[in-house]
Amino acid sequence: MAKVVQHIERASTEVISRLGQAGVATVHEAQGRTGLMGASMRPIQQDVSIAGSAVTISAAPGDNWMLHVAIEQLQEGDVMVLSPTSPCGMGYFGDLLATSAMARGCSTLIIDAGVRDTRDLRQMGFRVWSTAVSAQGCVKETLGSVNVPIVCAGASVQPGDVIVADDDGVCVVPRGEAEAVMAKAQVRLDAEEAKRQRLASGELGLDIYNMRPRLAAKGLEYV
Amino acid sequence: MAKVVQHIERASTEVISRLGQAGVATVHEAQGRTGLMGASMRPIQQDVSIAGSAVTISAAPGDNWMLHVAIEQLQEGDVMVLSPTSPCGMGYFGDLLATSAMARGCSTLIIDAGVRDTRDLRQMGFRVWSTAVSAQGCVKETLGSVNVPIVCAGASVQPGDVIVADDDGVCVVPRGEAEAVMAKAQVRLDAEEAKRQRLASGELGLDIYNMRPRLAAKGLEYV
Amino acid sequence: MAKVVQHIERASTEVISRLGQAGVATVHEAQGRTGLMGASMRPIQQDVSIAGSAVTISAAPGDNWMLHVAIEQLQEGDVMVLSPTSPCGMGYFGDLLATSAMARGCSTLIIDAGVRDTRDLRQMGFRVWSTAVSAQGCVKETLGSVNVPIVCAGASVQPGDVIVADDDGVCVVPRGEAEAVMAKAQVRLDAEEAKRQRLASGELGLDIYNMRPRLAAKGLEYV
Amino acid sequence: MAKVVQHIERASTEVISRLGQAGVATVHEAQGRTGLMGASMRPIQQDVSIAGSAVTISAAPGDNWMLHVAIEQLQEGDVMVLSPTSPCGMGYFGDLLATSAMARGCSTLIIDAGVRDTRDLRQMGFRVWSTAVSAQGCVKETLGSVNVPIVCAGASVQPGDVIVADDDGVCVVPRGEAEAVMAKAQVRLDAEEAKRQRLASGELGLDIYNMRPRLAAKGLEYV
Amino acid sequence: MAKVVQHIERASTEVISRLGQAGVATVHEAQGRTGLMGASMRPIQQDVSIAGSAVTISAAPGDNWMLHVAIEQLQEGDVMVLSPTSPCGMGYFGDLLATSAMARGCSTLIIDAGVRDTRDLRQMGFRVWSTAVSAQGCVKETLGSVNVPIVCAGASVQPGDVIVADDDGVCVVPRGEAEAVMAKAQVRLDAEEAKRQRLASGELGLDIYNMRPRLAAKGLEYV
Amino acid sequence: MAKVVQHIERASTEVISRLGQAGVATVHEAQGRTGLMGASMRPIQQDVSIAGSAVTISAAPGDNWMLHVAIEQLQEGDVMVLSPTSPCGMGYFGDLLATSAMARGCSTLIIDAGVRDTRDLRQMGFRVWSTAVSAQGCVKETLGSVNVPIVCAGASVQPGDVIVADDDGVCVVPRGEAEAVMAKAQVRLDAEEAKRQRLASGELGLDIYNMRPRLAAKGLEYV
Repeated sequence: MAKVVQHIERASTEVISRLGQAGVATVHEAQGRTGLMGASMRPIQQDVSIAGSAVTISAAPGDNWMLHVAIEQLQEGDVMVLSPTSPCGMGYFGDLLATSAMARGCSTLIIDAGVRDTRDLRQMGFRVWSTAVSAQGCVKETLGSVNVPIVCAGASVQPGDVIVADDDGVCVVPRGEAEAVMAKAQVRLDAEEAKRQRLASGELGLDIYNMRPRLAAKGLEYV
Repeated sequence: MAKVVQHIERASTEVISRLGQAGVATVHEAQGRTGLMGASMRPIQQDVSIAGSAVTISAAPGDNWMLHVAIEQLQEGDVMVLSPTSPCGMGYFGDLLATSAMARGCSTLIIDAGVRDTRDLRQMGFRVWSTAVSAQGCVKETLGSVNVPIVCAGASVQPGDVIVADDDGVCVVPRGEAEAVMAKAQVRLDAEEAKRQRLASGELGLDIYNMRPRLAAKGLEYV
Repeated sequence: MAKVVQHIERASTEVISRLGQAGVATVHEAQGRTGLMGASMRPIQQDVSIAGSAVTISAAPGDNWMLHVAIEQLQEGDVMVLSPTSPCGMGYFGDLLATSAMARGCSTLIIDAGVRDTRDLRQMGFRVWSTAVSAQGCVKETLGSVNVPIVCAGASVQPGDVIVADDDGVCVVPRGEAEAVMAKAQVRLDAEEAKRQRLASGELGLDIYNMRPRLAAKGLEYV
Repeated sequence: MAKVVQHIERASTEVISRLGQAGVATVHEAQGRTGLMGASMRPIQQDVSIAGSAVTISAAPGDNWMLHVAIEQLQEGDVMVLSPTSPCGMGYFGDLLATSAMARGCSTLIIDAGVRDTRDLRQMGFRVWSTAVSAQGCVKETLGSVNVPIVCAGASVQPGDVIVADDDGVCVVPRGEAEAVMAKAQVRLDAEEAKRQRLASGELGLDIYNMRPRLAAKGLEYV
Repeated sequence: MAKVVQHIERASTEVISRLGQAGVATVHEAQGRTGLMGASMRPIQQDVSIAGSAVTISAAPGDNWMLHVAIEQLQEGDVMVLSPTSPCGMGYFGDLLATSAMARGCSTLIIDAGVRDTRDLRQMGFRVWSTAVSAQGCVKETLGSVNVPIVCAGASVQPGDVIVADDDGVCVVPRGEAEAVMAKAQVRLDAEEAKRQRLASGELGLDIYNMRPRLAAKGLEYV
Repeated sequence: MAKVVQHIERASTEVISRLGQAGVATVHEAQGRTGLMGASMRPIQQDVSIAGSAVTISAAPGDNWMLHVAIEQLQEGDVMVLSPTSPCGMGYFGDLLATSAMARGCSTLIIDAGVRDTRDLRQMGFRVWSTAVSAQGCVKETLGSVNVPIVCAGASVQPGDVIVADDDGVCVVPRGEAEAVMAKAQVRLDAEEAKRQRLASGELGLDIYNMRPRLAAKGLEYV
């Protein structure tokens, strides 16, 4: 049952990069409001956005052995995504593992559990979204798997899916849909820019979106 | 039932401004420890204090239609205060709505729900206290009301009440009591300044407040 | 029952200082993964580490009277550690008490309850780890004790124990073990430095720690 | 500021009784989905429904003095509704206070805080909806008020409002609207009974409510 | 995107029934400790076990329209499994929908959201595991899907998977593995029965499982 | 560091039994409102009270090996009290371990973690207070200790301390104080009985405790 899938498909660097620029809220909208991880997934740093290909890790609660295994599978720009098989807030990851991951070209971890050495991680430029911060260390006793489908903070993640993360949270874009989602995100970004200028000039959403008739029809009263 | 009250009374700019300078803890004490919103109401920015007049919004859970309606009612210096009719952590508000509100002179939102585009909001100087951060978008299907009495994060808010918010949380000052509360807050501030100097010089609160006799009377033993 | 113990033993300044430099995660590991406070104990400032001797405070919920009593017992470099006798998120501590504590040479509070004036505290350089932020003030009606054994955020604390705190949380080192723990922490730090360099050069933990045979023995499959 | 309002208006016994029979879900719908307390408000007993007039109590956190004051104001069929001025999970109420309240004809407490002696309360037939169960006792040091407007578990309560509570939670009906809400609730109950029979016979909501055209119009596909 | 898959495969009645008798803890162990929903998923009734085939429902937050659509797809013995696309504690389901589902042969709902009319549901014999109880009603405005893959309370669910639920929680068994899991569960049950008798007679697990040598080897000291 | 203390002192059966009859709230009051575990410690059964001598267990998170070790140390009437060294909601204990413990005369577990087989445990008459219910199983890899001081749900527990538990929660009475606490509890029980009769006859606490003058002195107004 415990296995490491060594070859996974990844989306193109171009698509990944543009999804990262679009940001979580726009990407989430562009793919029909799916793929968002739960709000308990918070960044340990501020004002940072990333996107990358998911290397998934399924680990036993309180056991971070599989992180060592996963690091060997990393490629430049990958994002590690770890979910324990039972809820766990212990510290799976710290500055040594980050050093190792960065040496493989990976500088982001998404983890439905805890991390430690958070100050060091920020100083190293290693980015983390986690559901906990804890100095409590893990054991290395039980096998898990690398690059298998997982559920992380309520979202389904397949290896190679595109992970987009910023201050708003984390969103998962299925690899096969990444290009289409990027196209839709671009349409939204373009439309938003036009609207932003009209709104900034004082025009109201009520008028831009022609909401007044529907509000009236539903019975809204002005008094 | 769904209505928009277009004319509300506001406190004077002078009183609002001075309440903001006094800050949440002092104002809360000055009005007899009432009006504080719950501790789940947290700022998305740090080291920022505000005060303004409440434009209240009662919205259906997951439905941000009424924000568009409310923005038309905003005046310079107003604070939007939104509470859903059922607990909801979805993202009601982002950078486009902020652009629109700022065009009307409002740069603060207090919301017992979620916001998104938090990095953009910080960069724009739009200030938010919320109970959640989430990229999950809302629908526009159900009417709510603007400028009606609401309960937000456990505190009662009337339209036109003065909202004071800083890193400690959010406090509501009833409009009719704002001037009296400001006067009491000033008395506290003056008294605190004198105490601060004595404490800084090494004098003890035990002596300044003459606590030793009462401690002894209650039976405190030094061993 | 309510008492103030006036004379407590403290660890040496040298040991305390070196434990602070080692940090929470290392110290926690060095003493066999014990003494860590719960993850709800969070700093109000970022990227700050401290260590000091615990002056413990057992207080009634919502009653901060004993803080005034405790401040008289403080020595240069001490850390106040307060635990209410029942869970409480109210604001026990603000800038005036911080001014008084700093005048006695103490600039850190660890509290399983709330604090207020957080912006002022950061500006004063007073450091806080707390389980809540709240402007809600306390009364001064019920006695508690100073320098008695307490349980704070799930960890047992004796007066004079060494408190180490940073962005990862708070760890308690029993005074009598402080020197031994420091020695073990130093061994870890030295070992980590060597490993860090090997990992940074691209060597894998799998190889450095010789994990491959044990992984294979447990049945891990590469596919 | 601390006061006891001795004379309050109450709804008629008939209206109160019928609202209780309708139950929380129906009453909540009948008054436009307003007045529901938060889901943290849970019963200590199962399969019990009540309705009564609210005698409101605003109390300091950890201080149950005002319960003694409130009991003197109780009339047959009243419901005590207590909210602390700051979140508090301590045990405000136990079997002695229940004995006293029952002697005045009141056998229900709604409390945004804790209770104790829960087994005894169940055996006495005293009904409680609370946000906590805790043996931790309170002090009697700080005044509060009786029969003033309060916010309890997120809902606004005026003295004399009708409280309806069952296994689903607690709903507040403004006294002045109680009769109208009862009428609307009855309409719902009648309509529901007819629908229940059709649904029980195997007819589908899709057909009874004629949902198929609107689903198709919105684009639902059957595959 | 919104769709209803009308034909799904189901496991055999025999396998489903035996998985239900084995119970959640045994089934979870038998399939390698996978498939368990989070601990926030709690029953509204006590001492009840069920097993059935999942009819999955993906619904917008606060919108229960798809339940009406799903009911048409139910077969005898099915279990509805609903997950909102964003966290939501509102009441999606009550006695009318239960009446309709029972008319189709389904008497169980697993929902990562709220239910209401809980007393009625218990009296009707309709079984629910939910993450919330709330009288707050839903709208019927936004499409979702029926019989698509979902994530419910942290567990991945495919339509037709076997759902096992009891007082310990809810476990998902992939349909294709149901028979093999049942076989492994039976082996465990048989082994447990033998162990239970030895343990009941006073024999120790230390001896039955021959733990003493390994404990000694790891360094456990008896003092 | 990992050790099993084989001989511990216990309080007398008579004292333990009478503390159990007094119940958690009374015992907690009698010992000066100390020793109460946190409110997250909930019973899996209703209307059951127990008291017994603590056999303490310190276990690694997700590792229930030490339960097997502890069971050998049990005597008739003992209560197992387990606390993990890091927060953990996994299922440490089920019907097999309960069978083994009951064969040694122990029928109660207090655990700051999860249990499973809860229905079976209720049917066997094995009583549990826990902070979680979860079917998720544990490993047996890491040593812990038996009969050492622990902190459980925020309360300090020494081996041999008297544990009192009922529907209100769990309270710890230090063994050396058990007799004195029992005497104080009896005084309370006697006093309460007298008060109960006066309250039941309609006399008010305001009069029995002579509260009116102090309320008036503090400024309470009747309007």
